[in-house]
Amino acid sequence: MTAVTRTISVGVIGAGRIGRLHAELLARRVPGTCVGAVYDAHRPSAAGLAAQLDVPLAAGVEELLGGDLDAVAVCTSSDTHVELIVAAARAGKAIFCEKPVSLELGELERGLLEVERAGVPFQIGFNRRFDPGHASVRDAVAGGLIGEPHIVRISSRDPEPPPLAYIRSSGGLFLDMMIHDFDMARFVAGSEVVEVYAQGAVRIVPAFGEAGDVDTAVVTLRHASGCLTMIDNSRRAVYGYDQRVEAFGPGGMATSENPPIHHGTVVGADGVRHQAYPSGWTDRYIVSYQREWEAFVAALRAGAPPPVTLQDARAPLLIGLAAWRSVHERRPVAVQEVVAA
Amino acid sequence: MTAVTRTISVGVIGAGRIGRLHAELLARRVPGTCVGAVYDAHRPSAAGLAAQLDVPLAAGVEELLGGDLDAVAVCTSSDTHVELIVAAARAGKAIFCEKPVSLELGELERGLLEVERAGVPFQIGFNRRFDPGHASVRDAVAGGLIGEPHIVRISSRDPEPPPLAYIRSSGGLFLDMMIHDFDMARFVAGSEVVEVYAQGAVRIVPAFGEAGDVDTAVVTLRHASGCLTMIDNSRRAVYGYDQRVEAFGPGGMATSENPPIHHGTVVGADGVRHQAYPSGWTDRYIVSYQREWEAFVAALRAGAPPPVTLQDARAPLLIGLAAWRSVHERRPVAVQEVVAA
Amino acid sequence: MTAVTRTISVGVIGAGRIGRLHAELLARRVPGTCVGAVYDAHRPSAAGLAAQLDVPLAAGVEELLGGDLDAVAVCTSSDTHVELIVAAARAGKAIFCEKPVSLELGELERGLLEVERAGVPFQIGFNRRFDPGHASVRDAVAGGLIGEPHIVRISSRDPEPPPLAYIRSSGGLFLDMMIHDFDMARFVAGSEVVEVYAQGAVRIVPAFGEAGDVDTAVVTLRHASGCLTMIDNSRRAVYGYDQRVEAFGPGGMATSENPPIHHGTVVGADGVRHQAYPSGWTDRYIVSYQREWEAFVAALRAGAPPPVTLQDARAPLLIGLAAWRSVHERRPVAVQEVVAA
Amino acid sequence: MTAVTRTISVGVIGAGRIGRLHAELLARRVPGTCVGAVYDAHRPSAAGLAAQLDVPLAAGVEELLGGDLDAVAVCTSSDTHVELIVAAARAGKAIFCEKPVSLELGELERGLLEVERAGVPFQIGFNRRFDPGHASVRDAVAGGLIGEPHIVRISSRDPEPPPLAYIRSSGGLFLDMMIHDFDMARFVAGSEVVEVYAQGAVRIVPAFGEAGDVDTAVVTLRHASGCLTMIDNSRRAVYGYDQRVEAFGPGGMATSENPPIHHGTVVGADGVRHQAYPSGWTDRYIVSYQREWEAFVAALRAGAPPPVTLQDARAPLLIGLAAWRSVHERRPVAVQEVVAA
Repeated sequence: MTAVTRTISVGVIGAGRIGRLHAELLARRVPGTCVGAVYDAHRPSAAGLAAQLDVPLAAGVEELLGGDLDAVAVCTSSDTHVELIVAAARAGKAIFCEKPVSLELGELERGLLEVERAGVPFQIGFNRRFDPGHASVRDAVAGGLIGEPHIVRISSRDPEPPPLAYIRSSGGLFLDMMIHDFDMARFVAGSEVVEVYAQGAVRIVPAFGEAGDVDTAVVTLRHASGCLTMIDNSRRAVYGYDQRVEAFGPGGMATSENPPIHHGTVVGADGVRHQAYPSGWTDRYIVSYQREWEAFVAALRAGAPPPVTLQDARAPLLIGLAAWRSVHERRPVAVQEVVAA
Repeated sequence: MTAVTRTISVGVIGAGRIGRLHAELLARRVPGTCVGAVYDAHRPSAAGLAAQLDVPLAAGVEELLGGDLDAVAVCTSSDTHVELIVAAARAGKAIFCEKPVSLELGELERGLLEVERAGVPFQIGFNRRFDPGHASVRDAVAGGLIGEPHIVRISSRDPEPPPLAYIRSSGGLFLDMMIHDFDMARFVAGSEVVEVYAQGAVRIVPAFGEAGDVDTAVVTLRHASGCLTMIDNSRRAVYGYDQRVEAFGPGGMATSENPPIHHGTVVGADGVRHQAYPSGWTDRYIVSYQREWEAFVAALRAGAPPPVTLQDARAPLLIGLAAWRSVHERRPVAVQEVVAA
Repeated sequence: MTAVTRTISVGVIGAGRIGRLHAELLARRVPGTCVGAVYDAHRPSAAGLAAQLDVPLAAGVEELLGGDLDAVAVCTSSDTHVELIVAAARAGKAIFCEKPVSLELGELERGLLEVERAGVPFQIGFNRRFDPGHASVRDAVAGGLIGEPHIVRISSRDPEPPPLAYIRSSGGLFLDMMIHDFDMARFVAGSEVVEVYAQGAVRIVPAFGEAGDVDTAVVTLRHASGCLTMIDNSRRAVYGYDQRVEAFGPGGMATSENPPIHHGTVVGADGVRHQAYPSGWTDRYIVSYQREWEAFVAALRAGAPPPVTLQDARAPLLIGLAAWRSVHERRPVAVQEVVAA
Repeated sequence: MTAVTRTISVGVIGAGRIGRLHAELLARRVPGTCVGAVYDAHRPSAAGLAAQLDVPLAAGVEELLGGDLDAVAVCTSSDTHVELIVAAARAGKAIFCEKPVSLELGELERGLLEVERAGVPFQIGFNRRFDPGHASVRDAVAGGLIGEPHIVRISSRDPEPPPLAYIRSSGGLFLDMMIHDFDMARFVAGSEVVEVYAQGAVRIVPAFGEAGDVDTAVVTLRHASGCLTMIDNSRRAVYGYDQRVEAFGPGGMATSENPPIHHGTVVGADGVRHQAYPSGWTDRYIVSYQREWEAFVAALRAGAPPPVTLQDARAPLLIGLAAWRSVHERRPVAVQEVVAA
């Protein structure tokens, strides 16, 4: 709209699966952006990505942060996020950070404090907010189409469980998977969560249970507004990604349904058959990743705060920690209990 | 709404499948009506129906027409309709007549002329106009939601072919089956049909072909308004009744889709499966039969003309005759050619 | 199937809304049944119904039970059910009883004990089990299509709140409304419920809160099998009856979606619009009422136990009582706690 | 699958809208391909594209064809296709040509003859065959799921009319728009078309009529197999791209429905509302363009004939010419009449 013309240059730190995804989007699909540099502690990964996209390779984080970048994308493993956020904030770069900032509340607060001190723009990577279907539910609520939400329902089921090794350092289902839904609940309801009751079960991969995790869970949340949210997660849905969101209020209901792989149908004597849902991660959500960058870049251009904030980085972690405590203590847990701990 | 209170008493002539249907609706489901008498040339049928519904049995048409009835429902075989219409018109009864009035144009005109002379209310049984889904297409057009229709599409496929014996006296597909769709095209487009191009094929029951009929057909109609309608018929859809209507115009599209048997769904690794469509005639259309009576009765009470008129009885027959000529002569046929013949 | 021919004669006790519904179904729609007598303490109601259906009017319960009936349908207000069950059981009649048997556990047990002693067939009126869509979810589970359920989700929202007077004696939302869903959860999961966590809110009718009730609620259930069920209820959905059931397991998912009022659609520049859901109680569920009678009658004819049992009458009450305790004590409550109380 | 490793190098001739689309797909999305050179008579267009994708710019067609390319993509205006095909065939390059080869039958035959002589692989750009939904209809037919087709229905409506200037050289609706549907009819039915009856109307843009074109059309096709196809086209559907395909046979029906923009829904007192369809050309069909390249490349690697053949380039033109004759002569026209002309 406005006559902003300068390309936003982003340094991508981390050249694993998610880093490559972001780098490709920035280099090729997000209008007005480029990849100013890539870095990964595993040098061959970074070099391969740099060559593929024909972008500069940085020798280290310092070199990358010292360059002429507008922003950095933190796409490394979770345990390195806080250090990188601190360094990027001190270097005055705008920060896009993949979720989670940290699995530890103290660490998270340390990182966010540094961001606040530096006053740099910050966005946490809750990409699902930018899925057109899910966003339409939020838009319906924000636009007053259904009134103040009374009930929110979220189903979130993955096509395949992650590797056991991942589970061991992921924080478990409530922090590695349902954290997206905690964010979605806040986003859709437009109100913070004050209490959590969580139940988990091991129904799919017994080894997950031995590692202290669950693979099936149902959670109810009570929001400050009085809204009640129900979430269910499963580590494996044989029919593909199952990611549905629903908000119900005095004026009606807004839902986001699963997109089928395609819209072909066969109708025979045995009924109607059509495709189920994508099982590929990017098939399901690539548009949301592109749109989260467009929103971040638009905020940078406008000098406005990015749409997914520090509080959005913090609150789902608190809910996730409260969910684990609820499972272990078999009782509803106030989010405040976790903060105070 | 208004304070009309008197029950409308209807004499039902014909106690076959369709006569019993109408009688039961009038006796039990249509508010403010009763069956004043039933008659059938096959006395046991009439007696059985009269006993079942606990209503009077008439010994003959004269006795029935001589009774204190508001209306008669003509539900006998088609070749007797005109005689009964004439008798009922002369007796001053309002007439509801199952379609068709006659397969012969001269006969039809003779019957309708008598109705016009007598000035009695008359409604022809094109029940599908009263199907809530189909009616919603007409309502969308009439309400200006899609603008003046440019294209109408109608699919009409039966679950099972009729018996060969029926075919031999039915007038064939264009007069026994597609006649409903000719009426629907006029109803939805809101414009008379001026030209017909019809193609037929024998794909399902070879014996139908030997009897001079087809079991598969596609037809295009040109309306006076310029609207173009496409109709397809098949005598057998293995998945149940397939009856879809669509009107397209400059403002959009209105459609009537097939209702499934129920709304349960199974989603598995092989996709999504749900029910196809009813194969029972009354399952699919019982509501439309009830609603056509409600409309007829409402017109009688209001002293208004019934909503499906003499012209609606005549026009589809003309279109059907033109369709047969088109098939035989392999060219588009003006409806006017048939009238003039 | 078998050559059973005798008509099953049912005495209907209670001629209010639900009694009239059952009587009309038995008199006219359920094959092989008749209404042997009707009785209501409010004699004009009973007389009106008897006249309408042309069936005998009983002067009292004793007279009705003394007649030549195969079964009785108990359709009076809930507080009279136990007395009538006891009387009918002692009279050796098969019993169909509207839910609930009683809101008090001791009373319920007294009634069921008498039924067990008498050995008469008994069916409780959880009609929704016979809704074709909901039944298809159970059938999918029972047929092994989705495997052992891990998660069940039920949404149950009424078009309009009941009168406040009803609330005052109904037992409240968990006993007058969600009790259907407690039954559905057991039915679909195929496993008893062992623990309940319930949350309620007053969002719609403040006076319900003053009367000690809630109008919005979410509940999670833990079944003996490990299945986790989530239920939400609202007293008012502006878009009509919202009654959805979903079972998820290792083999996939079975769902029962809401039937629209009709299947017409309008597609315009502003998107696709179609009908929402019936707001009439019988529009939504009439088929289920007819099918529950067909199942009851089939069991009587076969000498088999009716499909909805004494345990099905008891268990949902226990879950409902546990739900209320959970709301009041703000903790998960074992169903066993309620039994032991 | 096999160990083929060499990248397929494609020269792109034409750097307009469709040329850029193909070049970007080849450079970035189609696995195992690259753009070996680009050329456009409008040099700045070619230079811009070459720079954007960092690929070589050819100074002329001869230079391009003289290079080390495996294939060429002919993406220029239609009237230059034949010359380029001839040149590419003589240079021994595999040829991918956008449709149509030519609007003149003689020219088309001349080009195709040269391809046959050279024996080079050739594919015509009927991309819609590769749309996953449409392809599923063909797959259902080819897999025997619905039996031999009796009836095919195709609706194809564009979101916006093209510019009048385009109309003047496009060959008109039957050659610039419905030609896709003629190909689809042959593809889905698996049988050549032998007779055409076409009707057109000017309902949207009067100037199109003055230019000798129509903007609304309905056509019926008779296939050699006896299958009957109905097609409708409109130059403007206010709700976006409307592209539906349906095949009906003795075993059932396969359909390809319109994908909505997203799968969010709002349910209120006034019904259910959701998104209509994309109005952007690439939004609707980008996947089909990628998949047509994947199929072409797979054929080249396997040494197999490409899946869309010379006959597929020829037959729809014949049908289109027959359609125009049918409109002008107001009668069904045999395709053979056009060939013989």
